[in-house]
Amino acid sequence: METYTYMAMDMEEKIFRRSPSNRYLYIILVVGCIVSCVIGILIGRFAIRPDDEPEVKDGLYLKGVSEFLVKDGDPEIAEVLMKNINSDNIRKYLRKLTEKPHLAGTNESHELARELRDHWEAVGLDHVTMTPYKVLLSYPDPDDPNFVELLDGNNVTQYRSNTTEKILTPEEDKPGVVPPFNAYSASGDIYGDIVYVNYGRVEDYQFLENNKSINVSGKIVFARYGEIYRGDKVRLAERWGAAGVILFSDPNDVTNGDFSRVYPDDWWLPPSGTERGTLLIGEGDPTTADYPSIETAYRELSTDYFVPKIPCHPIGYGIAMDLMKNLGGDSVQDEWQGGMNVIYRFGDEFKVPGWKAHIKISTSNQNATTYNTIGVIRGSVEPDRYVIIGNHRDAWVFGAIDPSSGTAVMMEISRVMGQLVKSGKWRPRRSIVFGSWGAEEYGIIGVTEWVEEYTKSLGARAVAYVNVDYAFDGNFSFYAEGTPLLFSPVIKATKTIRNPNETEIAAGRTTVYDTWLATFPAKKFGRPRIALPGSGSDYAPFRDKLGVPIIDLWYTYDPDLNVLSYPLYHSVYDTFYMVDKIADIGFKYHTTMGQIWTEVTRDLADSLLLPFNVSDYSTVLNDLGESFISRFEREMQSFGLDTSLLQGVISNFTRETEEFEKRIKTANLQDPFVVRRINDQLMQLDRAFLDPAGLPGRKLKRHILFADSTIDNYSGSSFPGLSDALVEISLGKNTTEQREIVKKHFSVVLFTIQSAAGTLKDVSDFMYRR
Amino acid sequence: METYTYMAMDMEEKIFRRSPSNRYLYIILVVGCIVSCVIGILIGRFAIRPDDEPEVKDGLYLKGVSEFLVKDGDPEIAEVLMKNINSDNIRKYLRKLTEKPHLAGTNESHELARELRDHWEAVGLDHVTMTPYKVLLSYPDPDDPNFVELLDGNNVTQYRSNTTEKILTPEEDKPGVVPPFNAYSASGDIYGDIVYVNYGRVEDYQFLENNKSINVSGKIVFARYGEIYRGDKVRLAERWGAAGVILFSDPNDVTNGDFSRVYPDDWWLPPSGTERGTLLIGEGDPTTADYPSIETAYRELSTDYFVPKIPCHPIGYGIAMDLMKNLGGDSVQDEWQGGMNVIYRFGDEFKVPGWKAHIKISTSNQNATTYNTIGVIRGSVEPDRYVIIGNHRDAWVFGAIDPSSGTAVMMEISRVMGQLVKSGKWRPRRSIVFGSWGAEEYGIIGVTEWVEEYTKSLGARAVAYVNVDYAFDGNFSFYAEGTPLLFSPVIKATKTIRNPNETEIAAGRTTVYDTWLATFPAKKFGRPRIALPGSGSDYAPFRDKLGVPIIDLWYTYDPDLNVLSYPLYHSVYDTFYMVDKIADIGFKYHTTMGQIWTEVTRDLADSLLLPFNVSDYSTVLNDLGESFISRFEREMQSFGLDTSLLQGVISNFTRETEEFEKRIKTANLQDPFVVRRINDQLMQLDRAFLDPAGLPGRKLKRHILFADSTIDNYSGSSFPGLSDALVEISLGKNTTEQREIVKKHFSVVLFTIQSAAGTLKDVSDFMYRR
Repeated sequence: METYTYMAMDMEEKIFRRSPSNRYLYIILVVGCIVSCVIGILIGRFAIRPDDEPEVKDGLYLKGVSEFLVKDGDPEIAEVLMKNINSDNIRKYLRKLTEKPHLAGTNESHELARELRDHWEAVGLDHVTMTPYKVLLSYPDPDDPNFVELLDGNNVTQYRSNTTEKILTPEEDKPGVVPPFNAYSASGDIYGDIVYVNYGRVEDYQFLENNKSINVSGKIVFARYGEIYRGDKVRLAERWGAAGVILFSDPNDVTNGDFSRVYPDDWWLPPSGTERGTLLIGEGDPTTADYPSIETAYRELSTDYFVPKIPCHPIGYGIAMDLMKNLGGDSVQDEWQGGMNVIYRFGDEFKVPGWKAHIKISTSNQNATTYNTIGVIRGSVEPDRYVIIGNHRDAWVFGAIDPSSGTAVMMEISRVMGQLVKSGKWRPRRSIVFGSWGAEEYGIIGVTEWVEEYTKSLGARAVAYVNVDYAFDGNFSFYAEGTPLLFSPVIKATKTIRNPNETEIAAGRTTVYDTWLATFPAKKFGRPRIALPGSGSDYAPFRDKLGVPIIDLWYTYDPDLNVLSYPLYHSVYDTFYMVDKIADIGFKYHTTMGQIWTEVTRDLADSLLLPFNVSDYSTVLNDLGESFISRFEREMQSFGLDTSLLQGVISNFTRETEEFEKRIKTANLQDPFVVRRINDQLMQLDRAFLDPAGLPGRKLKRHILFADSTIDNYSGSSFPGLSDALVEISLGKNTTEQREIVKKHFSVVLFTIQSAAGTLKDVSDFMYRR
Repeated sequence: METYTYMAMDMEEKIFRRSPSNRYLYIILVVGCIVSCVIGILIGRFAIRPDDEPEVKDGLYLKGVSEFLVKDGDPEIAEVLMKNINSDNIRKYLRKLTEKPHLAGTNESHELARELRDHWEAVGLDHVTMTPYKVLLSYPDPDDPNFVELLDGNNVTQYRSNTTEKILTPEEDKPGVVPPFNAYSASGDIYGDIVYVNYGRVEDYQFLENNKSINVSGKIVFARYGEIYRGDKVRLAERWGAAGVILFSDPNDVTNGDFSRVYPDDWWLPPSGTERGTLLIGEGDPTTADYPSIETAYRELSTDYFVPKIPCHPIGYGIAMDLMKNLGGDSVQDEWQGGMNVIYRFGDEFKVPGWKAHIKISTSNQNATTYNTIGVIRGSVEPDRYVIIGNHRDAWVFGAIDPSSGTAVMMEISRVMGQLVKSGKWRPRRSIVFGSWGAEEYGIIGVTEWVEEYTKSLGARAVAYVNVDYAFDGNFSFYAEGTPLLFSPVIKATKTIRNPNETEIAAGRTTVYDTWLATFPAKKFGRPRIALPGSGSDYAPFRDKLGVPIIDLWYTYDPDLNVLSYPLYHSVYDTFYMVDKIADIGFKYHTTMGQIWTEVTRDLADSLLLPFNVSDYSTVLNDLGESFISRFEREMQSFGLDTSLLQGVISNFTRETEEFEKRIKTANLQDPFVVRRINDQLMQLDRAFLDPAGLPGRKLKRHILFADSTIDNYSGSSFPGLSDALVEISLGKNTTEQREIVKKHFSVVLFTIQSAAGTLKDVSDFMYRR
């Protein structure tokens, strides 16, 4: 400031001495004024500190604090990230991931875990680590293969099933392919009659008992895959007294009826293709329920609750046809007749008297180590808020779709994000955590142990979990299953992303969203359908144990195909060849999935306020309430329970979401503590639906709204704890104890919804009742 | 800006037209330069926004945001608050509170709840409400009083106990005094021999069995109060097969041996004075364990776990002497001989053969409503962080000390704080919540239901709970029991507060802290002793269910007096008269307690960083570890459990606290998100010690470090779950199941300590193992 003053005085002096002409003086005057004005500007700008001035009392100056503190995400960054997703890279990663079988607990799986670690270190993530867990897995004995055979009256083998799937292309011809088996099956030899039980659901057994007087007790039940979880099929078979189970893929569910159009010519399942799969009940290592399988973990003496007591073996429709041909008994009604070229019979006897079946199972439970690989991009402003994205890495065999399509996409996303961070052009507001999970196929094991180990930190800090298991199992449309708070960011992202399907674009559906809305409309809600998920992938523990919002994303096939899953699911034929040459030539859909997943993640990580829409929560809750009441009103009344109480708490919840949204609109988002407070409430909402005691009979499932339903196939179950308890009563368990379970859990549901509504209230007013 | 430009042009025009002299021109030049400079200053100051300029990139300007955002508390406010605490007010409040008996669930108790509400509304709290809960309480039948009698061989009454305490001053002569009883006692008539069992502990029964061959099965056990919780005395009596229990206050524990110096002449217990008290096991309404007793609550069919199955009756030493006189059997050894002027005998027979005792109990469990009154001062910057302070309001009779001394002080604190807020001179950074709890005496019931009802919001937001049950039960020294994170704010506060004891000041101990340190030194730690509390007051659910740091404060008597509690505890003689005329003449100690409680609360509410000292946590944990290992090492080894693992996780925890403290020192506290992150970690630390499954056999106690120990009097129990399980084994329950419980819980303890250490790590690095 002193310098400026001196200069001004110097100029005045000059004017005085030289006694210049008027014109000259005028020029000096103008120059003087301009110079003075500039000097003034400099003084005003720099010498007078804004926070010394009264006007600034209306605000706060924070020294050394990032300008990003109260800034929202940058749409240009979104563009850059999405543009960088490269299909060639995804193809290259998928090729690498599917070179060898990589079953959980094997060296090949461990090798890929290290591969992921090296990749993440190379692309510039801030922290990368591997977390090993010692868990109980299950393997068949390679020297003593599992099979099904038919014996005649003299115990002579008349038929024996192949123990491996046929090699159809060089792609499958690799060492280490595990033969078809069901994980955690009991071992042993079971001899007896076979009874065909359709899908092996409750109603199927009831039909056999009531209409056919067939009792499956002590027999081998023969069920097609589909409708309910295979683990529940075995549990129900046990409940009805069966001694063993054979599961098969029916051609109706895995072919288009043209048996010549199968792998390797098309994506349909060939006759020897067999769906492997776990039978575990619940999630996570059954020896350490609710705790991580770390070095000092206590191991339960019994895992009886979680694993079947009887043997179970899966077969393809080739073998299934051979068995069905030999069954005696009545022919089945139309609904039970499947797609094999043979008349389906109930069995309970063989065509040839004296014959019997024999299942031989050598599968045994074994201790193994499974690895998760974790990578972190540290958040710039809120490093202690974690947006977690993940995918499992283990596969039954090559797993080109399940799960390597997702892994390949995640590798590309991490490359794109990591390199933008490395370049200094971007760092997300919140931390982004990448998880490559082990042993998902055995029962969501790797991720469950991880969530259990870090449950305190994740419980307090995890913002959302975005899962992609298979990124792609068809090119018909994008699809999502998830909990309500993540509906909005996914819908928003898909509206900005170009449709990978040129035919759809030509039809005017230019974005991913357009096709999604057209193919899966949820008309009632004016948006695409987003189902509430069961427990089919790695999102389960985030929802069930932590109450973290979750969503599962993928590109899928036309539901009108009426298949159970993509046809090559869990078979040896889920190969790179199939993806590269048949299913997603050019990897366009994989690339689009990369863009969607990236943008959802960026939005969650970068938005100033978490992009959760609480009114989506009340919409879902109202829908669950209606659906529950319409199904169970009569039963509830018969136990003296008033469903209008449920409607009451749901209405109250709805009102609170509306008031919360109003409050957000007028909040001063320049105040970091206001931002913090709103985000804390948003983070707590899903958590508030946890009941620490868990669902009746399933204490490790703690979210009262969202869980798979058990036993009965009540899919998209509303209030799974209540529904299951009521279904048990309808199945004959009409005891005082069971009725009290219903009454108590109904009270818990009412209380929990009220509690959740309370967390949305103005924070210093939360405990005030209406 | 346009206006300024126009003015400058106007001036130029004037100069040009008038063709002025050099001198005149010179003046114009100077004026022009000055005006231009001022204009420039204005432009520079206001028109150019500071955040467009490079220099301010080093910071952030937040519009409309309070200057308090990153400011620490103001010591001057502390002074003002403490100075305003007024002893006359406290006396006045206490007089009002103790006019009538106000047993939980009665109209008088309800009336006081409304009194508190009106007070808080009047003194200016922002929100005030009352929360009613319908709970199970217990009352004797007023028309059918409880008694103990002695019958001769012909069933003729030879002695019957008085059913009420004597009226000794007009103060006790009020309607509504409940006769002495034990809440939740079973009702009925029990006849039989009496066995004196000393304190009724495990070792007392073992002594009787092993050394005296006395079996109490089917008999009435006669136990003095003390050493263990009265509810556990009855539970142990049940375990040993007793049919009924008589509890008495031994003169050794409630007098100074001079029976003439008792109430109303002194604070010692007169012969008819009787300690009432609950027998409930655990905390909260036993009909709604773990859930709030709201309208829609499910009520458990059985409360068997929580309430005794046998009758129990309390008596004073007057009646006890009459009973003891008539007992036969051997005289007891010295340790069992108490302070009554009679030779104590084991009993199991009467002096006169054929006599028997009869306990008659009409007490029954009854539904009643209990009210909490809640008042809130809304926080200015972080209204969603709650510093909760509280005190129960219900009393067995008048409760002048227990709890009204605390209530009176709380009323004064709320007046002082409320009025400062109303005056506009202060508003705490965080919200302050005042709780006046109901039905504490029955088993911490009112507060437990409240914590259960608002568990989601409190679990996420409560910062600390500061309890004062009785503010005062002696003038010897200040004392505290609490969990480690609140040691530091209490120690800090007491160092700033003048000693109310002039003799102590004269001896150079000028502050509350000085006397505390001198009278209760914890030499090992270089600070006053702060015990780890059991579950004796309303702090319990905050610790056990929420993992919130808690502390309990009061002024107490000299421990060398060797009394169980202040002598008039739970008797009709706990009156205003006693406090006003005998115990705290002038209410000096009450006033000091008001200052301490105020300052601790203000510090918690106003400090930028929560004033928690994590190294206090590691100090306590190390101490617990050492004490556990020194007691149980041999047993642990015998089950194959390696206590060095415990030492390992404790060392790791210690290291993490040190690193955390280092990180805080270099943190930029100008950044509100840095402040938030550190405070979140501090808030999460105690919560991280919760295990959702609860302690073995006590699933509602979820803090693995802090809980009362059961059965065995292992006070200040280290790792109560482990200790209890090991003690059960030593008591003969050496089953595989019990040993597995020990093994599993040991694993849980190791894991939980590791988890807690993990929450202190750098937040984007939390999942990295060493």
